[in-house]
Amino acid sequence: MRSDIDRLMAERDLDAAVALGSTATSPTMYYLAGGVSLEGVTVVLRRGQRPLLVHSPMERDDAVKTGMECVANTRWNLAAITREMGGALLDGKAEQLRRILADFDVRGRVGFYGHGEIGQAHALLTRLEQVLDDVEVVVEFDHDLISSARVTKDEQELASMLDVARRANDVVAAVADMLSSRPVANNRLLAPGGAPLTIGDVKRFIHDECVKRELEQPDGNIFSLGRHAGIPHHSGDPDAEMELGKSIVFDFFPRPVGGGYFHDMTRTWSLGYATDEVQAAWDDVKAAFDAVVDALAVGRKTSDYQIMTCELFEAKGHPTVMSTPGTEIGYVHGLAHGLGLEIHEPPSFFPYPGNSATLQPGAVFTVEPGLYYEAKGYGVRIEDVYYCDGDGRFHSMTPANQALVLPVGG
Amino acid sequence: MRSDIDRLMAERDLDAAVALGSTATSPTMYYLAGGVSLEGVTVVLRRGQRPLLVHSPMERDDAVKTGMECVANTRWNLAAITREMGGALLDGKAEQLRRILADFDVRGRVGFYGHGEIGQAHALLTRLEQVLDDVEVVVEFDHDLISSARVTKDEQELASMLDVARRANDVVAAVADMLSSRPVANNRLLAPGGAPLTIGDVKRFIHDECVKRELEQPDGNIFSLGRHAGIPHHSGDPDAEMELGKSIVFDFFPRPVGGGYFHDMTRTWSLGYATDEVQAAWDDVKAAFDAVVDALAVGRKTSDYQIMTCELFEAKGHPTVMSTPGTEIGYVHGLAHGLGLEIHEPPSFFPYPGNSATLQPGAVFTVEPGLYYEAKGYGVRIEDVYYCDGDGRFHSMTPANQALVLPVGG
Repeated sequence: MRSDIDRLMAERDLDAAVALGSTATSPTMYYLAGGVSLEGVTVVLRRGQRPLLVHSPMERDDAVKTGMECVANTRWNLAAITREMGGALLDGKAEQLRRILADFDVRGRVGFYGHGEIGQAHALLTRLEQVLDDVEVVVEFDHDLISSARVTKDEQELASMLDVARRANDVVAAVADMLSSRPVANNRLLAPGGAPLTIGDVKRFIHDECVKRELEQPDGNIFSLGRHAGIPHHSGDPDAEMELGKSIVFDFFPRPVGGGYFHDMTRTWSLGYATDEVQAAWDDVKAAFDAVVDALAVGRKTSDYQIMTCELFEAKGHPTVMSTPGTEIGYVHGLAHGLGLEIHEPPSFFPYPGNSATLQPGAVFTVEPGLYYEAKGYGVRIEDVYYCDGDGRFHSMTPANQALVLPVGG
Repeated sequence: MRSDIDRLMAERDLDAAVALGSTATSPTMYYLAGGVSLEGVTVVLRRGQRPLLVHSPMERDDAVKTGMECVANTRWNLAAITREMGGALLDGKAEQLRRILADFDVRGRVGFYGHGEIGQAHALLTRLEQVLDDVEVVVEFDHDLISSARVTKDEQELASMLDVARRANDVVAAVADMLSSRPVANNRLLAPGGAPLTIGDVKRFIHDECVKRELEQPDGNIFSLGRHAGIPHHSGDPDAEMELGKSIVFDFFPRPVGGGYFHDMTRTWSLGYATDEVQAAWDDVKAAFDAVVDALAVGRKTSDYQIMTCELFEAKGHPTVMSTPGTEIGYVHGLAHGLGLEIHEPPSFFPYPGNSATLQPGAVFTVEPGLYYEAKGYGVRIEDVYYCDGDGRFHSMTPANQALVLPVGG
């Protein structure tokens, strides 16, 4: 959490950290600015000192809301500096940043963070390595300073996440109720006009339910049926009709309008009844889900849970990414991911040898085993969000009914 | 435009270009994928060849919609490669990318593009410089390949931008109509319940009008009044009451729900009447706006228009960023910016010596002079979007009424 940053800097032997970017496109900057909207700013964190915010004077009123020490960027006139440096913008930007750091006496090992165009980032950081005299440019590829702070959520963040979770679960319940209430004809649900209800109709309903609760879906959603449910990220065919007895994967990952923390949950439904095949796959997924939840423990390596899930599915005869790398049937993805200002954020549950992540108090993450058989016409996934409280106990943030079969016909 | 990419690669002596990222967070990737939603993909552009898309098999159905040559990333198993390289994810990722490029015989000068965490980007590209034998890693800080393609819009992009422009202008007209229709008491507009109408109420109205037209505001909006209108990016105080005779700056920059092209427009309103001071400032801004529009010409340097605007305002006695660098009163910002998948994108109108950008057919950009006097309690900005057609003629995309005074009281 934010209050860990000084300690995390000390662990990395960092004297300072610099973050670059805009709050609308950089979750790092959104996090450091505490949700205040700012464009193209520079944040300088110095161990034991108040954070420094270099901002456009056009945003001077918003800047002060961050609680940081604020300095207008016009103190280092970019156009003038660029001319002075010969006219190339890269030279101007690097020199402007060099002067900012020098004026605030930032020296030693300095980490650089934020989000931007990758070629620009590489060009700028390479240039900074050349022009900064007293600064060693430090970058981290994984387990980095800001991610490591973000990986555990404080009370205020948990409250925000519980709030968006409640709204997301309400939307999913509303969708289930709507589907259950539709008349049935020809083994299909009907729309109000009497035509078959389509996935396009359902997606519009989801959108409207989001609007009512001030949620947005910047990355869309997944509402896929039958064969398409057998492709984990298939978003669903808008023209598909809502046929009974087919598996439906509804993966929903909204956040509050205007930005903030995401929820991420998946339900698999079968309208009216489930085939034996889909029910058996669902039972296997549910058993894996329950086994993982039972095994959640502070200090345990996140990658253990992916390995455990593969073993459970393999014991039931399903191919997995561990037994059959590259498989497109069976268990084809990761078990879980951290959740917060990004849908996928640390901790990683990916079992690579350098992944030292463990579950810690404040962690918020998904649990989402699934089985996929496109050619057989179905897929199953169950996904809830779990968090670890300050006492090391794990709780679900996703109360929505998990049941597979959705009664239909009112 | 997209069809220029081969030519732009040749101009840069690039043999290939590699883009990394997700369509939801990288406008570069959104552009290359033509709006198809994809997560964590690699696109390889080779001069004269069909683009190559390396994607997760979980997204195989969406991948083919891009029209690119599709290859599942499981062909290069990241976990196995990472283990083979000793366990560090950076080594694994770099080696995976090395193998992808080698397997497709990509060599020579290769540009790297996309969006991501800047420290990660620098670490990965630095490592690639070390491990790629036949590839020279090329990055560009400005006027880069993808931006240079995006700077001119093709017919389909222009149609999308005209569509979002129409919807945005409808919202602004609806807001003006709503304000005009409210009853007046005590020199303020009243909300339906009889309490004073607040900026918070107006922001909710704007949001609802966006929802009706399937628009979203990922970067919010500006609706600021009086003193706050004198701070260009002040988003507005939700508790402020809608007082007559004060300048209101309404800057609106929505895009279609789910992503795509932005519109960006600003109106300055004064409810019921305008003070002489605000009217005079508005007249100066409008004169600058008209002078710039009259001077729009294919081939002219974009930075000329910023210089021209400064000169016009200085002749009227206003401080500007040219006469008074760092000024917080008068004309304090840039005249214009390119518009597209990002609100601010090339061409830049910023007058630094290395800025060689000129207006070209297909260009879409704002024209937005403004004057700001916070201490005097007002600010004025007028912003329309202009585009240049294939014959070199310039047209507004922003038909909304520009008038300063908004009649009130029904």
